[in-house]
Amino acid sequence: MKLTKEQINDIKDQQSQENVTKRVTAPELEKVLYEAMPALDHGFIRVIDYMGDDSSIVQSARVSYGKGTKQVSTDSGLIKYLMRHWHSTPFEMCEIKYHVKLPIFIARQWIRHRTANVNEYSARYSILDKEFYLPDVRNLAAQSIANRQGRGDVIEGEQAKEVLELLKNDAERTYDNYETMLNQKFDGSTIDENKKGLARELARMNLTLNTYTQWYWKTDLLNLMNFLRLRADHHAQYEIRVYADIMMDTLKRWVPITYDAFMDYRVGGTEVSAKGKAIIQKLLKGEEINLEQSGLSKREWNELMEAFKITDKIV
Amino acid sequence: MKLTKEQINDIKDQQSQENVTKRVTAPELEKVLYEAMPALDHGFIRVIDYMGDDSSIVQSARVSYGKGTKQVSTDSGLIKYLMRHWHSTPFEMCEIKYHVKLPIFIARQWIRHRTANVNEYSARYSILDKEFYLPDVRNLAAQSIANRQGRGDVIEGEQAKEVLELLKNDAERTYDNYETMLNQKFDGSTIDENKKGLARELARMNLTLNTYTQWYWKTDLLNLMNFLRLRADHHAQYEIRVYADIMMDTLKRWVPITYDAFMDYRVGGTEVSAKGKAIIQKLLKGEEINLEQSGLSKREWNELMEAFKITDKIV
Amino acid sequence: MKLTKEQINDIKDQQSQENVTKRVTAPELEKVLYEAMPALDHGFIRVIDYMGDDSSIVQSARVSYGKGTKQVSTDSGLIKYLMRHWHSTPFEMCEIKYHVKLPIFIARQWIRHRTANVNEYSARYSILDKEFYLPDVRNLAAQSIANRQGRGDVIEGEQAKEVLELLKNDAERTYDNYETMLNQKFDGSTIDENKKGLARELARMNLTLNTYTQWYWKTDLLNLMNFLRLRADHHAQYEIRVYADIMMDTLKRWVPITYDAFMDYRVGGTEVSAKGKAIIQKLLKGEEINLEQSGLSKREWNELMEAFKITDKIV
Amino acid sequence: MKLTKEQINDIKDQQSQENVTKRVTAPELEKVLYEAMPALDHGFIRVIDYMGDDSSIVQSARVSYGKGTKQVSTDSGLIKYLMRHWHSTPFEMCEIKYHVKLPIFIARQWIRHRTANVNEYSARYSILDKEFYLPDVRNLAAQSIANRQGRGDVIEGEQAKEVLELLKNDAERTYDNYETMLNQKFDGSTIDENKKGLARELARMNLTLNTYTQWYWKTDLLNLMNFLRLRADHHAQYEIRVYADIMMDTLKRWVPITYDAFMDYRVGGTEVSAKGKAIIQKLLKGEEINLEQSGLSKREWNELMEAFKITDKIV
Repeated sequence: MKLTKEQINDIKDQQSQENVTKRVTAPELEKVLYEAMPALDHGFIRVIDYMGDDSSIVQSARVSYGKGTKQVSTDSGLIKYLMRHWHSTPFEMCEIKYHVKLPIFIARQWIRHRTANVNEYSARYSILDKEFYLPDVRNLAAQSIANRQGRGDVIEGEQAKEVLELLKNDAERTYDNYETMLNQKFDGSTIDENKKGLARELARMNLTLNTYTQWYWKTDLLNLMNFLRLRADHHAQYEIRVYADIMMDTLKRWVPITYDAFMDYRVGGTEVSAKGKAIIQKLLKGEEINLEQSGLSKREWNELMEAFKITDKIV
Repeated sequence: MKLTKEQINDIKDQQSQENVTKRVTAPELEKVLYEAMPALDHGFIRVIDYMGDDSSIVQSARVSYGKGTKQVSTDSGLIKYLMRHWHSTPFEMCEIKYHVKLPIFIARQWIRHRTANVNEYSARYSILDKEFYLPDVRNLAAQSIANRQGRGDVIEGEQAKEVLELLKNDAERTYDNYETMLNQKFDGSTIDENKKGLARELARMNLTLNTYTQWYWKTDLLNLMNFLRLRADHHAQYEIRVYADIMMDTLKRWVPITYDAFMDYRVGGTEVSAKGKAIIQKLLKGEEINLEQSGLSKREWNELMEAFKITDKIV
Repeated sequence: MKLTKEQINDIKDQQSQENVTKRVTAPELEKVLYEAMPALDHGFIRVIDYMGDDSSIVQSARVSYGKGTKQVSTDSGLIKYLMRHWHSTPFEMCEIKYHVKLPIFIARQWIRHRTANVNEYSARYSILDKEFYLPDVRNLAAQSIANRQGRGDVIEGEQAKEVLELLKNDAERTYDNYETMLNQKFDGSTIDENKKGLARELARMNLTLNTYTQWYWKTDLLNLMNFLRLRADHHAQYEIRVYADIMMDTLKRWVPITYDAFMDYRVGGTEVSAKGKAIIQKLLKGEEINLEQSGLSKREWNELMEAFKITDKIV
Repeated sequence: MKLTKEQINDIKDQQSQENVTKRVTAPELEKVLYEAMPALDHGFIRVIDYMGDDSSIVQSARVSYGKGTKQVSTDSGLIKYLMRHWHSTPFEMCEIKYHVKLPIFIARQWIRHRTANVNEYSARYSILDKEFYLPDVRNLAAQSIANRQGRGDVIEGEQAKEVLELLKNDAERTYDNYETMLNQKFDGSTIDENKKGLARELARMNLTLNTYTQWYWKTDLLNLMNFLRLRADHHAQYEIRVYADIMMDTLKRWVPITYDAFMDYRVGGTEVSAKGKAIIQKLLKGEEINLEQSGLSKREWNELMEAFKITDKIV
């Protein structure tokens, strides 16, 4: 990640603020406010603003007149209760806003989370930065055989080199031709004074999907957790997980009690179907049961056995 | 509006906070933060929290690295431009949270605005306050004859007295019987130690719709303006307009530039249909046109003539 | 539930339609289309329209050109897979619309589900029907002692009689006074020709919360299941569960494959926290563990033991 | 647009359905149901399903028991009234679902309309079609000078040729390299049996933004009109307008009365600010006013003069 001098100054300028407020603050989150936390090769995440903290959840769940907090212990109990029983509205009472720089193909996954507010850098209006994502060789995974939308082993040696070469060359060439069509360099300088440039809204179609874009993205705490639950999961594509992992850390800084409940009940938890429950009940009673008798598919059976570490029953 | 001593202390406690933050603040809004601003006879509105200010709109519209503000004049120009051209997303980047006490029949109108977060005081869980809305005699309007969902002249004299008497007696009696069924007074004391109380989730059904409830209500700036545009309008029911008017003032304190643009382009503006436009164009050219030739209904014609103060053409 | 002759004819008229369409149809749902299915003492639910069936889920999950269906067996497998892994968007591709008559205090719970479309009968515009919910004696539950928002034993004998009397008298009296204030009977006839009536938007505030209202309510299949998961659950208030149970039956008629997956993975399933999972894992290995060592609260421990029928460990 | 034989058969198969239903139908829309209507060079729009018609709007606005329709004339009056006064909820009672094939850079604009349901073809799971958008020479516009996000004159001659050549070559080369990295051709055949293929979720990042994708997109009538109002407008990018224009036609077939009201009050109408209204009022009274006195910016002044065809005052 490389910021221009002007950008670095802008950020420092923001960080130098010392405003007095009657609102609640989240001191650990304040420490990293506005900081550009690197993600992938050229991306970043910055926390720009937030509203509320753990006590706000408690306050609105109780519809109380004063501060949310009575005592840390009761607050924690209430937040755990709300999380366990899927009470959603109190968690919507906190809000956070990020500034994110990310490759377009990841932005396209991200935007599917609709309950959020977004302002994206407009390529109809401006020229995109000359930056594109190139995976680290350690992340150059082959297509998974078992899972049609997953990754298998890492590709190595000559083939890895070749893939990286193709990605790099194609991104550079298409960007160069983007400039040619615009008749303008990425720094704004005109290429040929005697030519018109193609409309930016058209020229952008020549860019590859690993080109970086950026946006302001704002959501409430409930929907942030919904996002993280899906995108920090090991089934998520590695490139979005990198962002989700950084956001997990901002979650912890912002609302530490909620973070703990989230890890226990959502991230670390599991769901068991009616059929799955019946199977575990039998096993707990010492009864025997196997895949054939279970009514589950093989895949579902294995998922269940793995969740409860009954490794000798995995088939 | 009457607050208990404990509530007053809770509010003072909140207002005494002096937290330091790197976030932007809205100094005029900070002045009234947490304050219970009276509405109707027993209701109130309190601003509990907010996120962002005018500069945040500019910042996200530009997807900039630093503060939103360049200069007040350019900011103002951009905000007016965004408002005029119905750019919605930058206005979603600010958020505000209110604590509101209001009669149930007004809460039922309010909740129809779905793009908001709500936690309401639970009458399944707690006993509602013994407070109900009784209109001031000046607001005791008769049913409008012209408009099936509007108000006409004020009802006066004996009939007014009678109406207020009925409203008061019915609310008090149904509340008393609510307590009887609960076997509990509103202060929590048990009435008859030898009896069980009816479940609160059932007993509440005996209350009248002018009973007060309360909630935390949070929304973004765009949806706040959508709410105010409808609910501060003279077509809105008086009782919700009282709340909207107070919120209008908080809008002005929070985002003064946006407030001005909102007043000019939304509140004070008008919409003209394709047919209406053609009529105004003719009149501007000095041509004659009347209701019959216009293709408009009488009602629509009059709305148009009123909007442009062509009073001699109202039929 | 009592319908007027005109209403019965209107419904018959709708049911007599035999339109030809190229759209998919759900034959079992067609059988009950428009039918007023009774709920509580004066309420009902009617299915008014729907869009899509099980095959539409499959079709959009595959983004296919033709019909969704390949074979019932593969379709069923895919729908189960989608449900198990919380894929949400394909279930949003089906839509259903209900006409519901229900008491206002239940309508206030219902409306909290925001991802739905609603048109409610307007009491600003029209006079509400003279109908209010009175619980059957078997449902006259006392307040639960264990659970602050639940029901305990049924209230019986004299006290039950008294409660029903209070509910009935208060509803009738407040309705009579509503008519007096309106200067109009529920059938539209004027009471006193020499008097004005109070504006309907004001007079309605005198009604009790068990008065019936009605609305058109439309939602997609995903959000219908979210609604049913919460409202057909035994923790839900009995009065809304009555409606949810009827809707469960319409779900089964509409999308039988999805219904089965919903029952297995959502309704009959359970969630286990990270801590809970560790406890079950120990028990499966034959290790001992008790409440004290578990890190769970007593309530949480018991919920876990109940879910897996480890009855001897409930404390 | 080119469909495979299998796709053509799938579509024919759908169109051959003659199902009987008690639901309302929209005969003019049924005529084009499932038809692939061409858009741009390789895209299309297909109407897959719909729910409701004009009468459904009327029915739910009245919360009536029977069909919506009383008489075409009253229905039309009510729909116009609802549209003029921005009543939104009755228009949400109709729903439509499209299958759309479109270039990715257009999909990225489209997806910003959040109140819709979407299932997109997954490039993590499948290989994208070898199809990319190349503008017709008549649409090869230069960047506008006046408007930073608009188009100016068409680029012609040698430069046009060059631009098209660049777009074509880059799209083809990046697609070829996409296949190389996947070690698989677009038809699914393996290129080199001794090599692994790069994960599809990674390889896709090499594609250019004019590559075609496809999705199922479902929305309600209100949000469809919001979409069309913005995207069929002359300020919208030409490439999305092509789709919006086709959808306009489907709107007309589906709900002809609503379509007329939409054209009159939204598409053909205009908004006038408070300041603009004051200016028109002066002009109607024959008073003089110019830009300097108006309090408007030059741009705003000209927009107003154009809207009312006061051409001699444009500055």
